[in-house]
Amino acid sequence: MSAAPKNTLAGSEIVLGPTNYGKSTVRLVKVIRGPDRHDVRDLTVDVTFAGDFALAYVQGDNSAMLATDTMRNTVYALAPEHLVASIEEFGLILVNHFLSVAPAANRVEVRLVEYPWSRIEVGGVPHAHSFTRSSGEHVAVVSGTRETQEVTAGIDNLLILKTTNSGWENFLHDQYTTLPDADDRILATMLTATWSYAATTNVDFDQLWRGVHDCILTTFTDHYSPSVQHTLYRMGKAVLEAYPAVRKIHFTLPNKHHLVFNLAPFGLENNNEIFHVTTDPYGVIEGTVERRS
Amino acid sequence: MSAAPKNTLAGSEIVLGPTNYGKSTVRLVKVIRGPDRHDVRDLTVDVTFAGDFALAYVQGDNSAMLATDTMRNTVYALAPEHLVASIEEFGLILVNHFLSVAPAANRVEVRLVEYPWSRIEVGGVPHAHSFTRSSGEHVAVVSGTRETQEVTAGIDNLLILKTTNSGWENFLHDQYTTLPDADDRILATMLTATWSYAATTNVDFDQLWRGVHDCILTTFTDHYSPSVQHTLYRMGKAVLEAYPAVRKIHFTLPNKHHLVFNLAPFGLENNNEIFHVTTDPYGVIEGTVERRS
Amino acid sequence: MSAAPKNTLAGSEIVLGPTNYGKSTVRLVKVIRGPDRHDVRDLTVDVTFAGDFALAYVQGDNSAMLATDTMRNTVYALAPEHLVASIEEFGLILVNHFLSVAPAANRVEVRLVEYPWSRIEVGGVPHAHSFTRSSGEHVAVVSGTRETQEVTAGIDNLLILKTTNSGWENFLHDQYTTLPDADDRILATMLTATWSYAATTNVDFDQLWRGVHDCILTTFTDHYSPSVQHTLYRMGKAVLEAYPAVRKIHFTLPNKHHLVFNLAPFGLENNNEIFHVTTDPYGVIEGTVERRS
Amino acid sequence: MSAAPKNTLAGSEIVLGPTNYGKSTVRLVKVIRGPDRHDVRDLTVDVTFAGDFALAYVQGDNSAMLATDTMRNTVYALAPEHLVASIEEFGLILVNHFLSVAPAANRVEVRLVEYPWSRIEVGGVPHAHSFTRSSGEHVAVVSGTRETQEVTAGIDNLLILKTTNSGWENFLHDQYTTLPDADDRILATMLTATWSYAATTNVDFDQLWRGVHDCILTTFTDHYSPSVQHTLYRMGKAVLEAYPAVRKIHFTLPNKHHLVFNLAPFGLENNNEIFHVTTDPYGVIEGTVERRS
Repeated sequence: MSAAPKNTLAGSEIVLGPTNYGKSTVRLVKVIRGPDRHDVRDLTVDVTFAGDFALAYVQGDNSAMLATDTMRNTVYALAPEHLVASIEEFGLILVNHFLSVAPAANRVEVRLVEYPWSRIEVGGVPHAHSFTRSSGEHVAVVSGTRETQEVTAGIDNLLILKTTNSGWENFLHDQYTTLPDADDRILATMLTATWSYAATTNVDFDQLWRGVHDCILTTFTDHYSPSVQHTLYRMGKAVLEAYPAVRKIHFTLPNKHHLVFNLAPFGLENNNEIFHVTTDPYGVIEGTVERRS
Repeated sequence: MSAAPKNTLAGSEIVLGPTNYGKSTVRLVKVIRGPDRHDVRDLTVDVTFAGDFALAYVQGDNSAMLATDTMRNTVYALAPEHLVASIEEFGLILVNHFLSVAPAANRVEVRLVEYPWSRIEVGGVPHAHSFTRSSGEHVAVVSGTRETQEVTAGIDNLLILKTTNSGWENFLHDQYTTLPDADDRILATMLTATWSYAATTNVDFDQLWRGVHDCILTTFTDHYSPSVQHTLYRMGKAVLEAYPAVRKIHFTLPNKHHLVFNLAPFGLENNNEIFHVTTDPYGVIEGTVERRS
Repeated sequence: MSAAPKNTLAGSEIVLGPTNYGKSTVRLVKVIRGPDRHDVRDLTVDVTFAGDFALAYVQGDNSAMLATDTMRNTVYALAPEHLVASIEEFGLILVNHFLSVAPAANRVEVRLVEYPWSRIEVGGVPHAHSFTRSSGEHVAVVSGTRETQEVTAGIDNLLILKTTNSGWENFLHDQYTTLPDADDRILATMLTATWSYAATTNVDFDQLWRGVHDCILTTFTDHYSPSVQHTLYRMGKAVLEAYPAVRKIHFTLPNKHHLVFNLAPFGLENNNEIFHVTTDPYGVIEGTVERRS
Repeated sequence: MSAAPKNTLAGSEIVLGPTNYGKSTVRLVKVIRGPDRHDVRDLTVDVTFAGDFALAYVQGDNSAMLATDTMRNTVYALAPEHLVASIEEFGLILVNHFLSVAPAANRVEVRLVEYPWSRIEVGGVPHAHSFTRSSGEHVAVVSGTRETQEVTAGIDNLLILKTTNSGWENFLHDQYTTLPDADDRILATMLTATWSYAATTNVDFDQLWRGVHDCILTTFTDHYSPSVQHTLYRMGKAVLEAYPAVRKIHFTLPNKHHLVFNLAPFGLENNNEIFHVTTDPYGVIEGTVERRS
């Protein structure tokens, strides 16, 4: 950063602050051609570099810059040999590779999303090379410096709903409050979860991902929810209790409102049966549950 | 239409041509509260009227117009009693209702999309009132006049892929052709299918929908595909052969291109293993397979 | 179509019905490098063929099929010489070219969308080679057979709004009607218009497009709107009266509802001042205004 | 946070970490009904609270929680009196109001996006109450605690392009680099900028926004760009030099790649004239330019 020229204005200097650059949305499919069947890996990869790139920003000197086109090539070039297990492990390979070829990069982050494909069943038998896309994306974010690495995993876009055992009561009222208390409502959210691991080696990332995923779903079902906030905490706590490998977990839970439709003008009762679903506005509840060391 | 005023210009008159109006994206959730478990119906409904509405268009007289807000109310008001079986049957009820209350409507079309929800499994047991959204939307379009009705069903957004048993060879070449022949490529498409039924009563719409859905998937797997076009025809023919209740079927099959990534500059072979997926441009293949009476 | 094999089922044959195929979303930018300044043409082009392609669909014989990849190449290859005036004229060139190289194509349709770029002004002077994207896409659909051609032009995604001089009154009531009459409401729509021309040669397509565009906007402002339907008719009539070159015009007008927010619970009046905007559901009003020959 | 129960596992406790909640996508339109003309304010508002909400998360006690529905009501209820000048000033009012009614909220953030509407011109005269949406959203993020406030302003989704005076040369090469140097390329980006102000009172936010906006555009045009990175720095430096009220500015600049289409197979030259535009993957360049105090 010492390369930044001095620009004095009103007693201050203008300098370059934090920067990053990279390649986004590298779409990669790998087909593993086994003797009896094919397997498909379907990924979107984003690569981000942070580091000592002031020469490029301030002086237009690109000599320390790996082209984002090279980042893309690298994702494809390393996939034959290294995309063989979890996306977390492929991400670790990518981060280390990028740190080795780009001396000015101090921190590299690779975000990977894997889309699941299920075999089409023909007469009850899973087909050898034909698939349908199923739901439930597996996300991993791997970041590293030359000293340390961090792996987080996550779930995106998991739409879940409870028809009962949820309410919202006894909340703070002010002059603009009109919402009545509810002790039986639909709870629906498009869940995003991200959790970080205590270690990056000797971890069965795929098994852990499925375990955390199932633990979240199970906890979603197992209690009366007085608020999205409390359900968030319970889900996080359950994950941390069941999985010592998880250091902390963060949730983003948009509240997809299902409102009882007013049928009274038509002489009809509506005992929590008919709802209209609204797109906007929507509540957003976020929070982290973590370990105190 | 005789109400249209005469405007002479260069020997011609300006008149109102075909029109339609309606309500789009009515989002409806119905919870069926059984003694042991809840069921969820999750629908988006569009309503469209065509008919003798020239008074409104030409003269600003709304006396024959049902408000689109009333269309919305009606979808909710009829759901308690009438959304009890397939969306096709609910659509038929809606069409008949709208024709009965709006004398100027000559033709009413109701499009319904149902989103499937799967029960969350807790310890292997499906939960009584907690769900995750699964993939595979069921679409129905019901249209009717005072004389006749038509029901079509369909599938939207079904992403399918074959890793082999697909090619594109021996096609027409001209001066701008650069694509080489391929006898082993990935075939991937986001399938949309729409089929019409020969009858509208005494039809098990849900069972037929599942049957057609499975027949399409099975046929997708069962042959070497020389083109998306030919696979389209085979899928349509298989459906019509297996389901006499289906009169005709139409497919829209965007070709989601998976291109072999060139690894040669890096000294690596790529034996149909590593692909990049491109968003645009993409091929689109459409066609109908039908019965000749 | 005589190539279709006979499949007898319940006294019927299964045959190929209407088909089409093509390439979608070909993104093309052309820079015209004048002596003093550059100009930019920014297009998305879709190509669709219909014709005698039963051999491919039914028998897997591609010998009559131009690859969609070739369609893409052609759009780029013809742009240097032929994308010099309106997109309508470029579309006519493309249609004729495709008919000449693909004998089995009976009908070719080319849809072109042009995105406008405005010069950045620096000190009040338009810059020679720097631009910002502005709004107002110009759409053209050119279709042709070996005998005839048709050109339509259009506007997509034109968001317009009136704060007054609009209402919705005296409409049909039934048992599910709750909407009150309104004689002063916001009228807002995302206008789509498509009009067809009587001739395809000796037409100044760009000048006509601007004229029709401005005529639509002017008419939108010039009257009390008793309904979206009536405003649609008035806009269409005004275009046909002013532009003899236009044969007919079709509008799609989603009603973007702006609802008066109820401030009464807070002791505040709301004299048509504060509105909430809802995304769904929304009304859709469509219609054609045409000449009676 | 002391309310968090202790859960011992492997020597650690599970506790609640950082949280926030709020309402997103509150869509508000205000019509100002002047004697001669109407004005339109069209906003989307997001409200986010952070604070001492552990009781709700951990114990399901909502007594300190303002409902997100109340947040929505408040935006509408305060708009008649307080949405009279810039969105930054309305945001400051909202932040202070929310801190006053929600004692547990320690920090409130309000994000506002204003969409510009232009008057339709009829015969060269701007219309009194009819508008078209124009491009260039004005964003403001106002955050505050009981001690301090911060205002940032920004631009979203500003699509800009240079046809020349841009290159990418002399960059770092490794074994996976295939991109050739370019000294004349198209530079195109969808610019996002966010800048923070040194003060929150006695600031003409609207005038500053226009000034920063124009300064960014002017700087985009005024130099040979050796990289998106360098252009980012120059734009930031120009803003800080011209506007002492701006403390720092952050840019996100996706590189919308325009690639020279290879016309050589068709015997055609392509002297930087015909480009295909690719959606993915794309480069992303980010960075902050700030003052060193």
